[in-house]
Amino acid sequence: MEFLFSTPAMSAAFSPSRQLRAMAEFEWALACALERAGLADPGSGDVLKRHLDAKFVDQKALQEGAGSAGNIAIPFIRQLTACVKMDYEAMARTIHLGATSQDVLDTALVLQIREALVLILEAIDRLDGALARQTRAHAQIILTGRTWLQPAPPTTLGLKLAGTLSALRRHRTRITEAAKRGIVLQFGGAVGTLAALGSDGPAVSAELARILDLREPEAPWHTQRDSLVELAAVMALLTGTLGKFARDISLLMQAEVGEAAEPAGEDKGGSSTMPQKQNPVGCAAILACAARIPGLLATLLGAMAQEHERGLGLWQAESATLPAVFQLAAAALERSIEIADNLVADAGRMMDNLNARLGLNQAEAVSVALAREMGRETAHELLQRACRQAAETGVHLAAVLKTMPDVTGHLRTEEIDRLLDPRQYLGSAQRYIGRVLGDVDASR
Amino acid sequence: MEFLFSTPAMSAAFSPSRQLRAMAEFEWALACALERAGLADPGSGDVLKRHLDAKFVDQKALQEGAGSAGNIAIPFIRQLTACVKMDYEAMARTIHLGATSQDVLDTALVLQIREALVLILEAIDRLDGALARQTRAHAQIILTGRTWLQPAPPTTLGLKLAGTLSALRRHRTRITEAAKRGIVLQFGGAVGTLAALGSDGPAVSAELARILDLREPEAPWHTQRDSLVELAAVMALLTGTLGKFARDISLLMQAEVGEAAEPAGEDKGGSSTMPQKQNPVGCAAILACAARIPGLLATLLGAMAQEHERGLGLWQAESATLPAVFQLAAAALERSIEIADNLVADAGRMMDNLNARLGLNQAEAVSVALAREMGRETAHELLQRACRQAAETGVHLAAVLKTMPDVTGHLRTEEIDRLLDPRQYLGSAQRYIGRVLGDVDASR
Amino acid sequence: MEFLFSTPAMSAAFSPSRQLRAMAEFEWALACALERAGLADPGSGDVLKRHLDAKFVDQKALQEGAGSAGNIAIPFIRQLTACVKMDYEAMARTIHLGATSQDVLDTALVLQIREALVLILEAIDRLDGALARQTRAHAQIILTGRTWLQPAPPTTLGLKLAGTLSALRRHRTRITEAAKRGIVLQFGGAVGTLAALGSDGPAVSAELARILDLREPEAPWHTQRDSLVELAAVMALLTGTLGKFARDISLLMQAEVGEAAEPAGEDKGGSSTMPQKQNPVGCAAILACAARIPGLLATLLGAMAQEHERGLGLWQAESATLPAVFQLAAAALERSIEIADNLVADAGRMMDNLNARLGLNQAEAVSVALAREMGRETAHELLQRACRQAAETGVHLAAVLKTMPDVTGHLRTEEIDRLLDPRQYLGSAQRYIGRVLGDVDASR
Amino acid sequence: MEFLFSTPAMSAAFSPSRQLRAMAEFEWALACALERAGLADPGSGDVLKRHLDAKFVDQKALQEGAGSAGNIAIPFIRQLTACVKMDYEAMARTIHLGATSQDVLDTALVLQIREALVLILEAIDRLDGALARQTRAHAQIILTGRTWLQPAPPTTLGLKLAGTLSALRRHRTRITEAAKRGIVLQFGGAVGTLAALGSDGPAVSAELARILDLREPEAPWHTQRDSLVELAAVMALLTGTLGKFARDISLLMQAEVGEAAEPAGEDKGGSSTMPQKQNPVGCAAILACAARIPGLLATLLGAMAQEHERGLGLWQAESATLPAVFQLAAAALERSIEIADNLVADAGRMMDNLNARLGLNQAEAVSVALAREMGRETAHELLQRACRQAAETGVHLAAVLKTMPDVTGHLRTEEIDRLLDPRQYLGSAQRYIGRVLGDVDASR
Repeated sequence: MEFLFSTPAMSAAFSPSRQLRAMAEFEWALACALERAGLADPGSGDVLKRHLDAKFVDQKALQEGAGSAGNIAIPFIRQLTACVKMDYEAMARTIHLGATSQDVLDTALVLQIREALVLILEAIDRLDGALARQTRAHAQIILTGRTWLQPAPPTTLGLKLAGTLSALRRHRTRITEAAKRGIVLQFGGAVGTLAALGSDGPAVSAELARILDLREPEAPWHTQRDSLVELAAVMALLTGTLGKFARDISLLMQAEVGEAAEPAGEDKGGSSTMPQKQNPVGCAAILACAARIPGLLATLLGAMAQEHERGLGLWQAESATLPAVFQLAAAALERSIEIADNLVADAGRMMDNLNARLGLNQAEAVSVALAREMGRETAHELLQRACRQAAETGVHLAAVLKTMPDVTGHLRTEEIDRLLDPRQYLGSAQRYIGRVLGDVDASR
Repeated sequence: MEFLFSTPAMSAAFSPSRQLRAMAEFEWALACALERAGLADPGSGDVLKRHLDAKFVDQKALQEGAGSAGNIAIPFIRQLTACVKMDYEAMARTIHLGATSQDVLDTALVLQIREALVLILEAIDRLDGALARQTRAHAQIILTGRTWLQPAPPTTLGLKLAGTLSALRRHRTRITEAAKRGIVLQFGGAVGTLAALGSDGPAVSAELARILDLREPEAPWHTQRDSLVELAAVMALLTGTLGKFARDISLLMQAEVGEAAEPAGEDKGGSSTMPQKQNPVGCAAILACAARIPGLLATLLGAMAQEHERGLGLWQAESATLPAVFQLAAAALERSIEIADNLVADAGRMMDNLNARLGLNQAEAVSVALAREMGRETAHELLQRACRQAAETGVHLAAVLKTMPDVTGHLRTEEIDRLLDPRQYLGSAQRYIGRVLGDVDASR
Repeated sequence: MEFLFSTPAMSAAFSPSRQLRAMAEFEWALACALERAGLADPGSGDVLKRHLDAKFVDQKALQEGAGSAGNIAIPFIRQLTACVKMDYEAMARTIHLGATSQDVLDTALVLQIREALVLILEAIDRLDGALARQTRAHAQIILTGRTWLQPAPPTTLGLKLAGTLSALRRHRTRITEAAKRGIVLQFGGAVGTLAALGSDGPAVSAELARILDLREPEAPWHTQRDSLVELAAVMALLTGTLGKFARDISLLMQAEVGEAAEPAGEDKGGSSTMPQKQNPVGCAAILACAARIPGLLATLLGAMAQEHERGLGLWQAESATLPAVFQLAAAALERSIEIADNLVADAGRMMDNLNARLGLNQAEAVSVALAREMGRETAHELLQRACRQAAETGVHLAAVLKTMPDVTGHLRTEEIDRLLDPRQYLGSAQRYIGRVLGDVDASR
Repeated sequence: MEFLFSTPAMSAAFSPSRQLRAMAEFEWALACALERAGLADPGSGDVLKRHLDAKFVDQKALQEGAGSAGNIAIPFIRQLTACVKMDYEAMARTIHLGATSQDVLDTALVLQIREALVLILEAIDRLDGALARQTRAHAQIILTGRTWLQPAPPTTLGLKLAGTLSALRRHRTRITEAAKRGIVLQFGGAVGTLAALGSDGPAVSAELARILDLREPEAPWHTQRDSLVELAAVMALLTGTLGKFARDISLLMQAEVGEAAEPAGEDKGGSSTMPQKQNPVGCAAILACAARIPGLLATLLGAMAQEHERGLGLWQAESATLPAVFQLAAAALERSIEIADNLVADAGRMMDNLNARLGLNQAEAVSVALAREMGRETAHELLQRACRQAAETGVHLAAVLKTMPDVTGHLRTEEIDRLLDPRQYLGSAQRYIGRVLGDVDASR
């Protein structure tokens, strides 16, 4: 179900072949660093460079070897060594020297995640642009506010979108902060001491980090997984925001509401049996991603207590789960961009739905106006009575209120009409939109 | 990481190609049922039978179509129809008649799960056999009991194994019970009324169920997912039991404990850098499966509140998650069988570890013997003192106790020795083993 | 937030005081069993019977003691012993003899769960009754079916309710099956061998089980938690079903839909500021319960791999989580009963909403009718065109179709009208309702 | 089970009474802000200030009211208003003016979390101090490294502790970053527009934020929950780190390992039946906290898709779950401090365990030394053979190697001894410790 839960680019970033190439990259950089430290023959790096494409891998043997070894690093290194050995026996001798399986697997994962984050940030930029444009365009488009899935005072479509936009910008900051901690080299040898390299450890490690363009952490983090899981947590938060966005659009798209819709498309959202159908497939895909991520993050958090210098099972559980989290976030972003780019908004229907409510949604405005005179609670109860009457009789709330002496004693007819005018009851909506968009402008 | 998280057979059961074949099976059976009801041309079933291998599917177009449609059923049926139409225009007309996408996808999933359960039950049988054999063989092998990861009175390896065996037998019962509810036809048409078939609905549905050898449920269950999620919950419970089994073996396999081990094997459990290594790769794999399942089940439970007559996103989240649960259970079972089949037990080391404890593990025996005389608490405190002294001085608890008048006033020397003999302190262990094995025998 | 997440009766079942009483019950029954086996002084049971109310407990000291001991059983038994000792020194001596902390805590939990299940089953009965009544009453009330949150062919309110009713009945069966496995005695002593009781173990265990009216399991299950977690899983499945029920009602209750509502009540569902509000507080509460349970069940499943003869931390995590699962299920049931008992259904609005769709929802009926003539796909595309035209022009689909020669060539005018009549397009709805209600009747 | 899952201070921070006081604080600050804007009578703030203790609350009525209203804010405000009204009718009129239930509940929660974070950060400081001290003290204490729960080359206790210390410092940074986003005012009125305050909204909001000493966000965040859930995610990551710490200590504390232990204490870690017991109750408590958090975080992430301007159920699920996350983190921290403060380390036993391994753990050192000569793989296989022989015969690896011509051809006897000396095989351990401690020093 890749069509729902990933994007081609993100699938590529976490594909088996990309992983193998990232592993080859690690072994190449290590060879260069060892060479520079005088621990590998001159030219070792150059020889390994020829295998950055990992074409030497025999997938079948790799899987079988992994079944016995518990990870793919061991057969991978065996195959790499065999391949190099054919032509350069001496250089094959020092492949992987000083490193352990987790070093190559963790660092390869970090390289993949670095690539993944580029994709994510680029998608966030596109979504940011689309949302900013739509927020600006619909800043003044009035629609029913809804709380507890029931009508509330009006808001604007722009303000709704600004909420998502604002969260999206926070996610970008989170990614930057988390990446500082998480996009780092893992290189510690068997137990995180780099003992096999003796006193050359620091120099090799520094050079390895430099070649891979990764920050060197204070110490190897093979069983301290916080920074890795943090990156996944940020993806989960991001997807949560997109889930809320899709939830709202899909609710607005209900036929009985009809206020907004994801863009239509040839063949999009049809049914195998119902000719009239235009399903919100984009929203559904985002909601499906958002539904899957929380359980995956729970797995990652639960896998943090990895035993001693390398865990038993938990590390494997983690590495099977992390890629999915990035793929789900990417898929949700891509679908959100499609929706945000061409969001369909029906301002007329929004106003019709508001008007169909006979002024009830703005009852609070009258209640507040009366509160100063008679107290918030008395006013609230008065308005509750009036609302009930309006709802039961189908008479507009304004007309009902004008018949109530408790009201007319305090408010003139025009005042009642003005108070119940949704356009007059938007408070600070434009100000909030302005702040969010101002922040967008400032960051450009 | 399929080598860790599935078995070849279970991967096949949930492979894309098996899913397509199961979908083709549904459409074939539907054609037969329609034909019998006079709603499809004679021979329709036969024509569709030729496509049970789903070879007609163009995977690329399928994925693209699914992206627009939100599921693969729509492009699948389009391709099937196009393929049939070439030779049998009339018979293509009624393909999928009366059904909706969810009917074919859900029923195909049920067919796949039915196959998966056969694999699971067969594996349970093998594990049951291995565990029963080992339980019997090690019924009397004494080892340190351990609570809170600290030494406790002795138990036997057989009793430890009997615990897993007993749980395994309960899981088999659970599978049978859950399968009665969950292995059923889904066929309801667009909204679960089978309206498109008019008065023929019941007959077509009954015939469809008969052909697929599935029970017909009381009513379509397209948005009532309880029975499907129940099957996954049983897989999760099963995997939880296996996780406990692996946890124990891996702890017994620690070098400092050394009482049991998973079987060694050529290349198995080696390290990329540490020559001495024999890692418990089987246990690790089981624990990794057990670590992944809880989050997946949470996803499935969270996806139950599917809206109205077909949910938005939650159904997709479910179908992406269910196969993984079966695969993880299958992988954990297979690895458990490998371990149980050739479990290495070192009875000598077990006894050495017990003896190294200077009799402390059996302190309770003396405490209980004294309790009738001086009260449980006084005896408990007396023994706490004696244990502390033994631990601090390295003198056997028997020797310490023999110097304490409060003890020797009540217990003779030989009695103290007998009480501290682990072979004398196994209580009902054999009885419990006997009951569990008796149940095994009875079921054969 | 107990008002949302439990019921008074279920809170009582899992209250600290109920737990202490269940623990006292265990110690009393054990005293009786020991007495009968000649291991405790005659009258021991009688003495302990006076403390079944657990009034002797000093809560502050218990909590402090638990902090050091890691559980409340140790200080509880100390306090119980001290209390008994004052008057009956000899009988205090054998309190808790043969048992360990987990025996009393686990068995107390089972006693509490047994009580909880009575409450759950009783509530299921009430909900079953209410749903059966409403299903019958609304069997023929037609409303828009909705898939992907978009209009689909019609169904009936009775059929929607029958889905929940049918699942509810499966949950009852699940509870019965799971209770057979889970409502059993835990009594194994320090490591599950009952060694402290020597050859008296079986007799004491059997008598203890008899007194507590609990089944004796094959073997102690102190670290085999499958049957306990299974009970929680059934509660989770049940709550998932209720979440779906609440989701649907709350969606039908949206002002723009207005087809059904949870019953209103004095002060119910008001807002602190919006006078017009009538919020679906019952649905919200159920959905909140359903949102919380999946994560809790993940915790329970993740806590199954308890080490050796007593786990380290996982057992505690489990016992803190299990009660919440039962409480959430009970709360969700109670709120569902309130809604089902007095569900508000607006048949007129249902028909209005259907009619407002200009016949589009029934497009499938025409498509199917034409399929035999021109093939399912051609008919489907034809109808898609007609639907689009109807939607864009606001003309009823019947009128549109009557202008299309491809249609009128095959269908007469009256036929088109009949096909688009929602009352004619309910298929097997009544049959399914009948089957579910028949099952209800059969079980009475 | 508060003794396990919270601390008294953290329980107080999230107690019902603290929540009510935080709510009273919000209403007081709002009254002040309204007064300053001329929207409330002079003296309103002073009057509400008298009720900051929330003593006016009738708990029973509050719970009943909450059951109907769906939250406690509505009855709380009613009670507050009634209480004020008795003496100051006019000032009661404007209580809560402009605000909605979620404003007071969310802002109260933020105030509580701010308090909670102070507690967390203070505990992190204490743990940081204890870990830094122990890291320094045990920097050179050598023990067996362990990967996959099997012996690996040596490391030092200091390096193990430095790993936790390093993660802890990252968590502090995360908290600071997340608090910047999350510790902000929530004030948006019914739908987030502050419409009820008309043009006074911005001024009232700014003043309210100033009084409560909270940052004003760009826009109300009532249905954008990312910053709240982020704070919980950081607590989950922190607890994950502590779980790993406890996991390691508890494994080192196994009797057969005996290398480290949590500090003993009067009555601590005893058993109700086993006199010899000293259970790791601190580790168990931490692991129990770590086991519970992932599921809770999944709930919070799953609750992010809150509908429109106020969610249905998800908001409630969130607010029932968040406090538990902070309490679990606090409890895990407190137990970790207890352990870190007085960690028992047995350097002699560590060395004994290493020596008992006959040099096998350092096999890698020889393998690396030979690799340059004969290639990594040949050396690896050679050492595998030697290790197997040593393990089977019980002869020290050095002695075995000295008999192997392939080895002695390259390495002198003294060299073999030096290579197998664990003290010579610690690589960069001191350097990593120095970096982590240097960072600690720098931050003081």
